Amino acid sequence: MLPDNRTNPILVQLTRGPMVESLHRGRAVAVGADGAVLGAWGDVKALVYPRSANKAMQALPLVETGAADAFGLGSEELALACASHGGEPMHTDRVSAWLARLGLTAGDLECGTHTPYHPPTADAMLRRGEAPTPLHNNCSGKHAGMLTTALHRGETIRGYVSYQHRVQQRILGTIEQVTAQDLTRAPWGTDGCSIPTIGLPLEALAFGMARMADPQDLPPARADAATRLLDAWGRHPELVGGTDTFDTGFMRALSGRILCKAGAEGVCVAVIPDQGIAVAVKIDDGAGRAAGPAMAHVLRRLDLVTAAEWTGLEELAHPAIRNRAGAKVGGLSAGF
Amino acid sequence: MLPDNRTNPILVQLTRGPMVESLHRGRAVAVGADGAVLGAWGDVKALVYPRSANKAMQALPLVETGAADAFGLGSEELALACASHGGEPMHTDRVSAWLARLGLTAGDLECGTHTPYHPPTADAMLRRGEAPTPLHNNCSGKHAGMLTTALHRGETIRGYVSYQHRVQQRILGTIEQVTAQDLTRAPWGTDGCSIPTIGLPLEALAFGMARMADPQDLPPARADAATRLLDAWGRHPELVGGTDTFDTGFMRALSGRILCKAGAEGVCVAVIPDQGIAVAVKIDDGAGRAAGPAMAHVLRRLDLVTAAEWTGLEELAHPAIRNRAGAKVGGLSAGF
Repeated sequence: MLPDNRTNPILVQLTRGPMVESLHRGRAVAVGADGAVLGAWGDVKALVYPRSANKAMQALPLVETGAADAFGLGSEELALACASHGGEPMHTDRVSAWLARLGLTAGDLECGTHTPYHPPTADAMLRRGEAPTPLHNNCSGKHAGMLTTALHRGETIRGYVSYQHRVQQRILGTIEQVTAQDLTRAPWGTDGCSIPTIGLPLEALAFGMARMADPQDLPPARADAATRLLDAWGRHPELVGGTDTFDTGFMRALSGRILCKAGAEGVCVAVIPDQGIAVAVKIDDGAGRAAGPAMAHVLRRLDLVTAAEWTGLEELAHPAIRNRAGAKVGGLSAGF
Repeated sequence: MLPDNRTNPILVQLTRGPMVESLHRGRAVAVGADGAVLGAWGDVKALVYPRSANKAMQALPLVETGAADAFGLGSEELALACASHGGEPMHTDRVSAWLARLGLTAGDLECGTHTPYHPPTADAMLRRGEAPTPLHNNCSGKHAGMLTTALHRGETIRGYVSYQHRVQQRILGTIEQVTAQDLTRAPWGTDGCSIPTIGLPLEALAFGMARMADPQDLPPARADAATRLLDAWGRHPELVGGTDTFDTGFMRALSGRILCKAGAEGVCVAVIPDQGIAVAVKIDDGAGRAAGPAMAHVLRRLDLVTAAEWTGLEELAHPAIRNRAGAKVGGLSAGF
C-alpha cells in the first residue's frame, strides 16, 4: 500500500488562541448489517490494522466454541475479553480469579507487561513498591479468553499468541467470515500484546461489527456469541475501559445504547445494537486524542445520536487543552 | 487561517509488519542567516506556534539587558533558560539555587506544576511521597530567566507571564527584530507554561534561529547574547533536555556541532552555528514522536550532516516500535 491521505478530510483540529495549531486527517464510515454505507469520509476501502478496536470479534471463538460456558464465564469475563482495561483492581482481580478457575496463573499470559493505564492505580503501585504483572496489561482479559479457548479445545497453550497457533487461526477465520473478506493473503503485523493484527478495509471492520450487532446472517452459534458479547460490553462499560477513559465515559453518557471501543494508533469503533449499525474511524496519524472526538462528531453528523444525547457527549467531543496551571487555553473540535 | 495541509508531504511514517499504519504530514525549511532558503517541504510560509522550540530567542533579553551578568549567571543557567528539561535533580537543584540567588523561591514561578518528564525521577518522587513543584516544570529555567530580567529592570514580578507584562512585550519585540516580522497583530496563544506563544511563519522561525547562529546583522548586544546562549545550549545538552531525551541524544551524537530543540505539538528547530544555518520542522498533527526523526531526515537530505554523523543518528532517525514483550514489531522512517 502506497500511503497517501490527501483526500482524507480533517476530522479533528486543535485550536489554541485564534489559530489552528494542529490537525488530524482521517477516515470514517458507518455501515449497516446489510452492507449499506450510511456515511463515509475519506478512503474507507484502504486497509487499517484494527488493533484493539475489534476485540469483540476476536472474542467470538471464546463463546461459540463453548469454552466460555464450559468454564462458567459470566458477562463480566466476557466484557473483560473485549476490554482494553485500566489495570485497576476491578480488572486485575477478576482476570486473576478467571485464570485460577482455568488452573493457570499470570505467568501463562503472553501479552507482556506494562504500567496500568489508570494513573492512580499505577501511582499507588509505585508507592507500595509493586511491579506490574501481565495482569495489568490492558489486554489481559482478551488473553485469558484465548487461553480459555485453547484449554477447552485441548490445544497447547504455550505460544498461543503466534500467527500459526490454532487460537489465532481460528480468530482469523472468524474475522474472515464476519467481515466477508478473504484474508488469506492479508497483511498482518504484531500488536502490542504480541498477537497478530490483520489489515482490513476500514469499511469491512465496520461491516463486521454491524453484523455482530444484527447477526441474522451469521451461523447460529456465532450469532448467539455476538449477541452475548455485545450485551456484556454494554453492561460493563467500566470493565471494557476503566475509570476516566473515553470509552467508558462515552458508553455511560449514552446509557449503553451505543458501544464504543478504541484501538491503538487512532482507531475507534462504535456499535449500535438496536439499529444493526457500526461506525469505524481511523486517524491517519494515529493520534488517540482525536479518535474518540472524531467518532462522536461522525455519530452526530449522521444523526445517530439525538440532540439530548449530544448534550451528554459535548465534553467528550470537545476536550479542553489546559496549561499547567489548569486554565483552558485551547481545545479539540470537529474539522469537517 | 483556514487549515489545509494537503500539499505538505508525509515526513514520517510508521510501518508495522508489511504495512504503513500511520503517517505524519508536515513542513520543514532550512534557512541561512542571509535569508536564503536552502530547502523547503510543504507550506513554510504558513504560521506555527513555536512553543518551546524558540526558547533561546525568548532568552535573548535575559543576556542583552545585562540581567544575566548582574546576577552572575554562567553557561549552566543560560542553558537552563533555553531548556525543556526532565525535572531531574541536575535541573531542579540548579534552578533552585538560581532562584535563591535572586532572593526568590519556587513559589514565584508562574509556570505551573507537572510531574517530571524523566520517568525514573517521577517514579522516585512518588516512592518518596514527594509532590512535584514548579521547579520540576520543564520550563522552570526559562521562567527563572524571565524573573531575573524583571528584577534587574525593576519590574513587578507578579504576573510576568501575561502578554501585557514588560517581560513578555520585551520578548515579543526581540522576536520581531530577530525574525524580521511585524508581529503587532500576530495571533498568539497561551503556552503550557502560561506565557504567550506567538504565531510566526515557519520560515521566519528558522530565519530567526539562523540569525542567532550568525548574528552579524543583529545589534551588538543582541549578537553577543545570541552567541552566548547558543554556546551554552551546545555546551550543556543534558541541561537543555535530559537523560534519554531526543534533543540531548541528538546533540551528543553530533558532539554539539548542531543544536536541537523540540517544542510541543511537533515543532523542532536545529541550529548549525558554524554555518549560520537553521532548520525548523512542524508536524501537522502535533506528534512529538515524528518531529525529531523528521528533523534528522531533513538534515541528511540537505547534506547538513555527514555520512559519518548519520551513522550516529540512525537510531534516533528510525525509532523502533516494540510490543509489550520488548520485541521490535515496527518502526518510524522517512516518508519523503
